[in-house]
Amino acid sequence: MEKAFIFDVFGTLVDWREGVAKFANVAFEARGLDTDPYRFAEHWRSRYDPAMERVRAGDRGYVPLDILHRENLDETLTAFGIEAEFDDEARVELNHAWEHLPPWPDVAEGMDRLRRFGLLGPCSNASVALSVRLARFAGLQWDAIVGAETAQAYKPALEVYKRSARTLGLPTNHIVMVAAHNVDLAAAADAGLQTAFIPRLSEHGPGQTNDLTAEGDWSYVAQDLVHLAEQIEARS
Amino acid sequence: MEKAFIFDVFGTLVDWREGVAKFANVAFEARGLDTDPYRFAEHWRSRYDPAMERVRAGDRGYVPLDILHRENLDETLTAFGIEAEFDDEARVELNHAWEHLPPWPDVAEGMDRLRRFGLLGPCSNASVALSVRLARFAGLQWDAIVGAETAQAYKPALEVYKRSARTLGLPTNHIVMVAAHNVDLAAAADAGLQTAFIPRLSEHGPGQTNDLTAEGDWSYVAQDLVHLAEQIEARS
Repeated sequence: MEKAFIFDVFGTLVDWREGVAKFANVAFEARGLDTDPYRFAEHWRSRYDPAMERVRAGDRGYVPLDILHRENLDETLTAFGIEAEFDDEARVELNHAWEHLPPWPDVAEGMDRLRRFGLLGPCSNASVALSVRLARFAGLQWDAIVGAETAQAYKPALEVYKRSARTLGLPTNHIVMVAAHNVDLAAAADAGLQTAFIPRLSEHGPGQTNDLTAEGDWSYVAQDLVHLAEQIEARS
Repeated sequence: MEKAFIFDVFGTLVDWREGVAKFANVAFEARGLDTDPYRFAEHWRSRYDPAMERVRAGDRGYVPLDILHRENLDETLTAFGIEAEFDDEARVELNHAWEHLPPWPDVAEGMDRLRRFGLLGPCSNASVALSVRLARFAGLQWDAIVGAETAQAYKPALEVYKRSARTLGLPTNHIVMVAAHNVDLAAAADAGLQTAFIPRLSEHGPGQTNDLTAEGDWSYVAQDLVHLAEQIEARS
């Protein structure tokens, strides 16, 4: 049976909090700002879901995530009182933070082992343009980029998972959605996909309270991607 | 300057005539048929452009190339008088011939060398589903699959090149379209892309008369992909 594994990216494969903080801190230090880069990254990220929700609710047509990130960046700079330090060019540059996120340590080996069992693609809310640059930075090798831009919709809209399956030319039940987020997997399951949960206990930094454990009856629950690959290998 | 190289695939990167003939011949031998597999491949392929032309002309909405290939296969089997030998399941299988095409000998090295200078993607009339399977077979490693399905249109419609550039997040003049076909490059140039011609003198078998030389003022003219990479390296 031909299979595919599709992946949530932010949080599941790469550490957005560390990556955004590190990238932003370069800009802060260049300007002599003592803004806490982790608080900045968390605040910027906190505007991500509400911004997508407007699209999901139909209040706004689909626009690529890069545009939402930029709007959220403008608001975040203002919230931190440092908006005067960043002109348009500097904001364009800072917005590329999301293309410079380090992979979790198990990702390279896990993906290489899973690749032998199926096609691999991101099923992320990121745009294709963001995804290709992040893939180069983080060493992610994809067969095809599916997800939000393919469907012109944002997860957890079911259409994103269904359209990703169609684009790959596979029935939904031949596809395993891999994510560190229970909400993502619940939607993938509703769309007919198989599901794999891997916890990322420090995605949101110390004191994280959500997505610490599997909260649904997922097809696979693994400690990390290597452990998931071991389970797939054992069943083959 | 961030760049991308996007490629025509059938003929430019892979030898469709050899691959389709070889794949079809397995099916012919299994049935004891003495059908010439090369003539069969050429006939099947000859129906490709007219089928796309109906979509380009607006007589039919966009459908993925796999569907056109299948319709053309049905007609080709009838034209060769062997339609009774292939039931629906056998036709589905034979249609996968287009996912099993060998790369020309210079492709692996050429792509590896070009990869250091920009993003790489197919800009083909193939579907994403076909492209990912062909990429696995032929060892093509893509950053992102752009082209016909991304644009929901068929080359040489200008929208295919323009939409591929937008999807990659680059201005059209940062992108080099690489093809063995002058018509493809003429359209890419009209869309604002840079162009690279590499001849494939045996794409159509012995006695090929078209696309033997560059017929336009292309940005690059090279003997093969390795030679193109050498030119790019020399200018960098």
